[in-house]
Amino acid sequence: MIDRIALALSGGVGGAKLALGLSRVLDPQELVIVANTGDDFEHFGLHISPDVDTLLYTLAGINNPETGWGRAEETWSCMTVLKRLRDETWFRLGDKDIAMHLYRTARLKNGASLSEVIDGLRILLEIGPEVLPMSDQPVRTTLETNEGLMPFQQYFVRASCKPVVKALRFAGVSDAQMTPRFSHLLRSNDLRAIIICPSNPYLSIDPILAIPGVREGIARSPAPTIAVSPIVGGNAIKGPTAKLMSELGVPVSATAIVEHYKDSLDGFVLDEVDAGLAGSIEASGIACAVTNTVMKTLEDRTRLARVVLEFARTLSPTVQ
Amino acid sequence: MIDRIALALSGGVGGAKLALGLSRVLDPQELVIVANTGDDFEHFGLHISPDVDTLLYTLAGINNPETGWGRAEETWSCMTVLKRLRDETWFRLGDKDIAMHLYRTARLKNGASLSEVIDGLRILLEIGPEVLPMSDQPVRTTLETNEGLMPFQQYFVRASCKPVVKALRFAGVSDAQMTPRFSHLLRSNDLRAIIICPSNPYLSIDPILAIPGVREGIARSPAPTIAVSPIVGGNAIKGPTAKLMSELGVPVSATAIVEHYKDSLDGFVLDEVDAGLAGSIEASGIACAVTNTVMKTLEDRTRLARVVLEFARTLSPTVQ
Repeated sequence: MIDRIALALSGGVGGAKLALGLSRVLDPQELVIVANTGDDFEHFGLHISPDVDTLLYTLAGINNPETGWGRAEETWSCMTVLKRLRDETWFRLGDKDIAMHLYRTARLKNGASLSEVIDGLRILLEIGPEVLPMSDQPVRTTLETNEGLMPFQQYFVRASCKPVVKALRFAGVSDAQMTPRFSHLLRSNDLRAIIICPSNPYLSIDPILAIPGVREGIARSPAPTIAVSPIVGGNAIKGPTAKLMSELGVPVSATAIVEHYKDSLDGFVLDEVDAGLAGSIEASGIACAVTNTVMKTLEDRTRLARVVLEFARTLSPTVQ
Repeated sequence: MIDRIALALSGGVGGAKLALGLSRVLDPQELVIVANTGDDFEHFGLHISPDVDTLLYTLAGINNPETGWGRAEETWSCMTVLKRLRDETWFRLGDKDIAMHLYRTARLKNGASLSEVIDGLRILLEIGPEVLPMSDQPVRTTLETNEGLMPFQQYFVRASCKPVVKALRFAGVSDAQMTPRFSHLLRSNDLRAIIICPSNPYLSIDPILAIPGVREGIARSPAPTIAVSPIVGGNAIKGPTAKLMSELGVPVSATAIVEHYKDSLDGFVLDEVDAGLAGSIEASGIACAVTNTVMKTLEDRTRLARVVLEFARTLSPTVQ
């Protein structure tokens, strides 16, 4: 018997929380997570994949829950010396984190694909579910801002998301292909759900959707596609989502998220505080599930994962 | 008044000891150290310059005196994770050491020359005397061994110098140029001495001498050239010098070192235990100074530095 697979699309912190919840309620072979790599960049000659690493650390239980990025029990000897060298320390690299970047950089240099490298890391970190990069080719999120064109990390980390964003570009995306496994899953009949995690739609999910064939693949898949709202009560749980929506002239509401994803969506998971929006969303033809979407504890994560999976079951054309 | 400059050619550990001694008895502007970069290599995408860093750490007083390489008070978080990732851990990278490699790699990538990068590190580490790489172009020491052709670090670290060496190559050397400052000093009248430190002649000094124009520049310089013997009583103080000499069919003796350098040499500093060889060396036209060359303490280093400088003074054509 083939286990039916839930395919989750995720960025970093917020998405990783739901991915962790899904990993606790599904068997390892029932979950595949596709990670945004639009945030990847080269720094000091190292290939850094922030969203992938946040997912790997979270799934392995070695993430730093206080910062939301990086590893728990990290040390900072290298950074201390870099500071003395007055070098670029705006992107903080923990000593243990650097090991991931060294491993990835070396394997890529030796000809491995990003998929192969991430799968190697996943196995070595004893993570059950598959984690795939969206593409093995470089896609680089770049922001048009009031301070000029900015690569993602310059905007996100160095400038602390302060510049006003006018538009986003995903450099290289038209030449990028979905990773083979991602493409295969979108074409298969084994998917029980496509889950858009509550990550930033513009910065974390759109790079994935922008890869040629992804939107079409999602639309054609018999599996229901469900997004979990990253907006709760007119605000983002974390990060610059609300600020970015304002700057792009989009109302900061869960309804705007539905509008943003509408070509791909079958169902939408709305927070309890936004229950009043369910009627108008359902009127637009998108099913709604209302629940507490704020994930503070591991129990919150697993409970939300169960709600999403049950919601998907009800939306499935082959519901048993 | 121009301070007259001592120019020291050095590899790693043994050479760095004498360089430190020289730095303690000369004013900063009176000493320039040219470092072997034939050991440089790329590892995990990082540009690593082992001999340069050993010199910098030694001159800054932050070297690890127990290992002979790396930094004191080093931490190993990164290496611990790399071991878990079962990655190439044969070249040990301390967390603080990695900061040097990240700094160098980033600056080289941004277009700085190796000379500029090393000068930046020197200033930031508050080291007085200039430290120059022998060349800004890559020269890579490669060994022909009974196990095939080996890049230097594969031979030296990974294979612990165990393979039998048949010959040495300095890949890229015919296209390399001396760094501008090195070249300028060899042509200047400001040199009071050219000092070949007691480093491995084959692995550490020959790459420097192999750069086009270096041997000729040394021969033409009015300053006396003095080598300090790395062989004491038929053995090397440290490292594979003696083993290498045997494999290359050279008798393991201070006399063989004189023979090796003879086209460049005006004077030779011989250890007391080899005093008996002084007569035959002087008979071949090379002046000898006999002293204790074994540098265990800082006092040993400064004393030997003084002996070398005084010896140079006696050999100078313009002796006052």
